[in-house]
Amino acid sequence: MKPITCKGFKAAGIASGLKKNGAKDLGLIYSETPANAAGVFTRNLVRAAPVLLDQERLKGGKCQAVIANSGNANCCTGEKGMTDAVAMARAAGAALDAPEELVCVASTGVIGQPLNIRKVESAAPDLVKALREDGFQDFAEAILTTDLSPKTAAGHGEIDGKPYAVIGVAKGSGMIRPDMATMLCFICTDIKAETNVLQKTLTLGANRSFNRITVDGDTSTNDMILIMANGASEAEIDSTSDQVGFQAVLDDVLLQLAKMVVKDGEGATKLVEIQVKGAKSPKDARAVADTVAHSNLVKTALFGEDANWGRIIAAVGRAGAVMDPQKIDIFFNEVRMVENGLTSGHAAELDATRVMKTPEYTILIDLKMGEGKASVFTCDFSVDYVKINADYRS
Amino acid sequence: MKPITCKGFKAAGIASGLKKNGAKDLGLIYSETPANAAGVFTRNLVRAAPVLLDQERLKGGKCQAVIANSGNANCCTGEKGMTDAVAMARAAGAALDAPEELVCVASTGVIGQPLNIRKVESAAPDLVKALREDGFQDFAEAILTTDLSPKTAAGHGEIDGKPYAVIGVAKGSGMIRPDMATMLCFICTDIKAETNVLQKTLTLGANRSFNRITVDGDTSTNDMILIMANGASEAEIDSTSDQVGFQAVLDDVLLQLAKMVVKDGEGATKLVEIQVKGAKSPKDARAVADTVAHSNLVKTALFGEDANWGRIIAAVGRAGAVMDPQKIDIFFNEVRMVENGLTSGHAAELDATRVMKTPEYTILIDLKMGEGKASVFTCDFSVDYVKINADYRS
Repeated sequence: MKPITCKGFKAAGIASGLKKNGAKDLGLIYSETPANAAGVFTRNLVRAAPVLLDQERLKGGKCQAVIANSGNANCCTGEKGMTDAVAMARAAGAALDAPEELVCVASTGVIGQPLNIRKVESAAPDLVKALREDGFQDFAEAILTTDLSPKTAAGHGEIDGKPYAVIGVAKGSGMIRPDMATMLCFICTDIKAETNVLQKTLTLGANRSFNRITVDGDTSTNDMILIMANGASEAEIDSTSDQVGFQAVLDDVLLQLAKMVVKDGEGATKLVEIQVKGAKSPKDARAVADTVAHSNLVKTALFGEDANWGRIIAAVGRAGAVMDPQKIDIFFNEVRMVENGLTSGHAAELDATRVMKTPEYTILIDLKMGEGKASVFTCDFSVDYVKINADYRS
Repeated sequence: MKPITCKGFKAAGIASGLKKNGAKDLGLIYSETPANAAGVFTRNLVRAAPVLLDQERLKGGKCQAVIANSGNANCCTGEKGMTDAVAMARAAGAALDAPEELVCVASTGVIGQPLNIRKVESAAPDLVKALREDGFQDFAEAILTTDLSPKTAAGHGEIDGKPYAVIGVAKGSGMIRPDMATMLCFICTDIKAETNVLQKTLTLGANRSFNRITVDGDTSTNDMILIMANGASEAEIDSTSDQVGFQAVLDDVLLQLAKMVVKDGEGATKLVEIQVKGAKSPKDARAVADTVAHSNLVKTALFGEDANWGRIIAAVGRAGAVMDPQKIDIFFNEVRMVENGLTSGHAAELDATRVMKTPEYTILIDLKMGEGKASVFTCDFSVDYVKINADYRS
């Protein structure tokens, strides 16, 4: 795979000793010049120290570097947690010779245990030395926890013939659900854009990507998506149509990353899009899609490759949406398994089962009550999910 | 175990061939005289034919018999489903020589497959022959699906020195959550009580028992609790204090059964009470208790016997309740694991882990925001849950 790069940005990922197994656990993204920046954050009322710190720092609209660690969430760690988050930023700033107020911080891992800040501080100089233009893959590895694979994506656009790049790195595997996730995501772009434009496009993009995925229905205390635009290219957003074009590139990068997160969901073996149409309203459609996507009984049936549509229809029935059970159609890809609330029969079930044996497919639920539509991505619920989460800290 | 009985009631359970493995799958409860009766039913908008039929029949306030099958839910089965439900009642009525309109029907099992009504019809005479005063254990076996053990409970009270009995039979293991469950429950009592009193006490009792349990967060299409009071004893409810006394006995029977359902939850190895106190309102308390009780990450940690309180506090934070993360205390039985949002340390963690190795314990969350309280019962989430539900239909 070609390494992703973006003009004026460097990144690195090294092992600092926070992870017991000696894997990479400390990452840095650096922009040669202070970048305009924005973020979206977890809505959990319990927020990790780095989340609180970054929310404060981004009020200034600027960021030049992000230091991120895995192996410890630095959450529910009290005053020491905030002191440690500030110290992480300070260590990175000192090693970079950059203002510490322009350094954002991210942490992911176990909640409630104090961070070993000494390890971060003593690794900071090596981390800076490791910075490379093509270092984003290393960074992606350094922020993994239960994820199996590093997640990077890139997109390109142009304004008046001037090209720009948008690249992204994400991690996330458990505690994933709409309204964000155990999810960290960092977007770098060399476009010139005002902070308010970045905030608007990022919020919209997050709603169209990370807020449409679920792995286990839990919401993390550490979720964030940060965007940094350093203006190192010639491309500049100065019209609505420029912004629309940028939004499309950004959305694509975010959705690529979001789908990678679901695919790499803890124990996941399937990536399934739950599409709802014909709902009385978009809100109803989303409620149905969410309820089906979160249902443990549906998700275990996806794992079992069992076209158990009764569980789907039961989930639809408790979603709180306006519906008539006798109108519902359910498709597995192009196979209509259910028509007007009744099974299409044995042949359809065999066909649906064939679809379910593939790693990626769509379940479409047509309520036939109106024009409301929604779509979310979910994964199956496997024996390994339980094993991973029963044993995580041991 | 002493068999449960209740004056004027008989019950039976036999194998009719609906279950492929030859296990009991058809049950009957019969009152020698028509009983006053009431019911509470699933709030799922997708309701099985028997639910729709019973809701209609109980408008008359009378019931003399209940016929129940396992192995097929008779849900999403269209017009044939309703015809079959009516035919089940008719077959029981004919064999009993009782009015078919006084027969209620219940079904549990797979959704969306037509019921083999011939098997029920041809088994009905044998079913009636099998009726015995101590036949409730057989009935309890006949309504099992993925449940491992039959569930019966009994309670006793008296009014003016005149004793009465309340007995109950339940099934339920998956699709269990507040607002009812894949749950069938039948209560028989020999007390004399008006239908409106039965409805009131049953609704209240259900809120205090079956609406406080969760196994997997799904809501079934077939849930019902029916109560029949045949007045075969001398005890009669004719004052508020009589009703209060009866409520206590009924609540106890319902709660015994509800806890048995959680304990027998699919794959469950633990019965855990989630208590919340100090919430700003009872509603907040319930929201927190529900969110924690439903969290897959919490439930897998219960299975792993891992005092991973970070997952509990993360679930509290997304419950939508008024809270301050820095005020929360969390106890595992008497062990205070978290104080003011921070860990009590390694010794407490060892003690909490010891509590988690027991099969039944309480997790208490004190929000210190007010006087609101709530309590729900949940189970752990095991590897076997996934295995059971991935393979259920195969």
